[in-house]
Amino acid sequence: MNTVSAEAIGELQSMLKEGQVSVNQTEREQRSRDESYHKESLPDVVVFPESTEDVQKIIITARRHKMPVIPFGRGTSLEGHVIPYNGGITVDFSKMDKVLEVREKDFLVRVQPGVTRSQLNKVLKKYGLFFPVDPGADATLGGMAATNASGTTSVRYGVMRDQVRDLEVVTADGTIIHTGNLAAKSSSGYHLNGLFVGSEGTLGCFTELTLKVYGIPEAILAARASFPTITSAVEAIVSILQAGIPIARGELVDEASMKQVNLFSGTGYAEKPTLFLEFHGNGAGLKQDVEFMKAIAEECQAEQIDFETDNASRTQLWEARHNLAYAYIHGYPGKKMMVTDVCLPISELAGAVEHSKVHLDALGLAGGIVGHVGDGNFHVLLMINMDDPLEVQQAEEFNERIVMYALERGGTCTGEHGVGIGKQKYQEKEHGAAYEVMKKIKRAIDPEGLLNPNKLV
Amino acid sequence: MNTVSAEAIGELQSMLKEGQVSVNQTEREQRSRDESYHKESLPDVVVFPESTEDVQKIIITARRHKMPVIPFGRGTSLEGHVIPYNGGITVDFSKMDKVLEVREKDFLVRVQPGVTRSQLNKVLKKYGLFFPVDPGADATLGGMAATNASGTTSVRYGVMRDQVRDLEVVTADGTIIHTGNLAAKSSSGYHLNGLFVGSEGTLGCFTELTLKVYGIPEAILAARASFPTITSAVEAIVSILQAGIPIARGELVDEASMKQVNLFSGTGYAEKPTLFLEFHGNGAGLKQDVEFMKAIAEECQAEQIDFETDNASRTQLWEARHNLAYAYIHGYPGKKMMVTDVCLPISELAGAVEHSKVHLDALGLAGGIVGHVGDGNFHVLLMINMDDPLEVQQAEEFNERIVMYALERGGTCTGEHGVGIGKQKYQEKEHGAAYEVMKKIKRAIDPEGLLNPNKLV
Repeated sequence: MNTVSAEAIGELQSMLKEGQVSVNQTEREQRSRDESYHKESLPDVVVFPESTEDVQKIIITARRHKMPVIPFGRGTSLEGHVIPYNGGITVDFSKMDKVLEVREKDFLVRVQPGVTRSQLNKVLKKYGLFFPVDPGADATLGGMAATNASGTTSVRYGVMRDQVRDLEVVTADGTIIHTGNLAAKSSSGYHLNGLFVGSEGTLGCFTELTLKVYGIPEAILAARASFPTITSAVEAIVSILQAGIPIARGELVDEASMKQVNLFSGTGYAEKPTLFLEFHGNGAGLKQDVEFMKAIAEECQAEQIDFETDNASRTQLWEARHNLAYAYIHGYPGKKMMVTDVCLPISELAGAVEHSKVHLDALGLAGGIVGHVGDGNFHVLLMINMDDPLEVQQAEEFNERIVMYALERGGTCTGEHGVGIGKQKYQEKEHGAAYEVMKKIKRAIDPEGLLNPNKLV
Repeated sequence: MNTVSAEAIGELQSMLKEGQVSVNQTEREQRSRDESYHKESLPDVVVFPESTEDVQKIIITARRHKMPVIPFGRGTSLEGHVIPYNGGITVDFSKMDKVLEVREKDFLVRVQPGVTRSQLNKVLKKYGLFFPVDPGADATLGGMAATNASGTTSVRYGVMRDQVRDLEVVTADGTIIHTGNLAAKSSSGYHLNGLFVGSEGTLGCFTELTLKVYGIPEAILAARASFPTITSAVEAIVSILQAGIPIARGELVDEASMKQVNLFSGTGYAEKPTLFLEFHGNGAGLKQDVEFMKAIAEECQAEQIDFETDNASRTQLWEARHNLAYAYIHGYPGKKMMVTDVCLPISELAGAVEHSKVHLDALGLAGGIVGHVGDGNFHVLLMINMDDPLEVQQAEEFNERIVMYALERGGTCTGEHGVGIGKQKYQEKEHGAAYEVMKKIKRAIDPEGLLNPNKLV
């Protein structure tokens, strides 16, 4: 640790309470990595703010000493967002974990950034409400807003950005701003809500979020449909979408991944390319939608369609799907996970999945294809041995091939995981001249570049 | 005209074709105003680009001569957005009016900015598709994106910002950028789509838009429900929303405005506070929703509920609603229209409408209350005599009173009309310290301040 850091840490200790500032090696190591294959790097210090004012003090101190500031939620990111490659201060939001207000009649909640999505849903259930965005991991809402997370339900309810009505943010100079308001729509001023969501800690630290929530639907029905090939499964979901059937979830799990699901979750599902679907609505409408969906799936060669109406079987089904990433990690001890994350216009999805499948099979690495195919977003999960440089290189090349395929067809290199450090090399290619505009915005709002430096832009 | 302008106009004439550059007084006068009470001001010259490259040439020329650039669609704005208070070059997009591509399978269209919403819907109908955003006026899509317009259907389909997948924009230095891509979601880079939508021509000129479109629903049902008081009508819509009934349109028209509707459109609707509703879905689901809606409306004292299932009656109903602003203008020759535009969290809507009604009655000016109450957004239409300074002042004070009421309750000064010049005085109050962040963004992207100067920020 250099003198600058030591001085800054001393100041932080004098400003905050005992237990709010830690230079303990274990604490720092826990915030030196995420859930992906990206290389670790230690912060100089970990701080645990308890209020917006604490965050403000931390950022002003960091600025005075020109130290990087890296916000940290639960460390579930997949592209290295939270790894402090330039050292500095990791701001751990685990002590800012209160649900501050439920505005039941307005379908709004106000939360601190450290609240996790399952924690919020537990509170909301009492009101007959729920928060839909579901990235699989039990991430914090602050982290989910920072990466514009989405997941299984976005095909119906939208992504994180669609839920944010207002953010309280501490910016680089320690100013506290609000990016929005409580109204359902506004044409007032520039759309800072949209800009700050997905900014990955590079424009400010979120200290409060006001989010849209939804009434628990009158009727919910889940279905599993298995297909002879991954292509027929993708064609089925595309046809269902194009028929205008309002699905609430539309997930693809390939054969290899169904095996992992059964191994890890103890389920006995058919080990075939499978669509996991869900429908939300009123009883009568749902019945009509599901009949129509069934007819389309059968036309697309569905071999078996099972429905789950009761709460327990539905929960089991979605838990199995959610545990898939952990199933792979658990199934391949010692290996690290690399996940591709492209998203394409729906007409290009079947081709993209087919292309990935061919190259994945040729690669010969352990892995599978899963995805939020209702949005045109899919992942290839690859388990790689980080000590084998050839394997790492092959995996990187595979990832790049998939990204290039998507970019050439109007897609994006990341549908939901974010840029972090993993997708930086594609930013110029994807955004062209607009990348310069992004850099201008970063320089205007964080002129010294201290907020999560060298991430995103 | 000064020497600078004369020189710039000469250059524009030499670069563009005959008929693309006009200094004709009538042409300039037609672009010196919008549809509101805001004072006219002439541009120095009107140009009619036919391509992105034309726009690029115009902006580079403007920059060299430090002349303002003001984009112009159909002039239907209500807050003075298109009025060139500092003179300069008005860029009229009426010759960039092509629907460039319908990506039927992706539910996407690519259009030039001068395409109007009714023109687009005519093209889409052949594909069984429609574009939902409906601000009443037959505005251009470029203009609608510039103000983040919304209207009757936003309660179901979202506002303009929710439809924009990509914009082609010429920025202040003449660079052509794309703000997005064709994928349904992305976590790549800063969200420029969201930032540029609603930027009112202050960050660049839009030259192409890629927009989401929707399948025409299987079943559509419209309803009119009349109530004894405006408060009972608002309470009914709030109850319908809180019951989770997915309405596609939810419009309030007060007694005075129903009279104007009947006078102008020749309809014989009850002259009572009325809700205009619409439902989209599948046949079975709709039936269940409408039964539930009816029960709630009756509980909230609905006196009469009429349903319109056939296309012709539905069209008549919505045309009558759309013509309301023109009905007032037509009904009060010589007067100008001022329209308030606040939007509040739904729990505050009844109080806000009541408050407005009391003060409108006390004011004694001609006008009425209408609104997209499903979003918490309502308008007071005031017809004012611009030659009577006292009347103008009273109307201004009334507008301010309504804005302050909304801002104190988490609302916004403009739900859909935008800031332009009319809502500038409330920006600091509404956005607080965030207003400084907006100014930083403006300076970073348009450092010389030539793009629609003195609007929005």
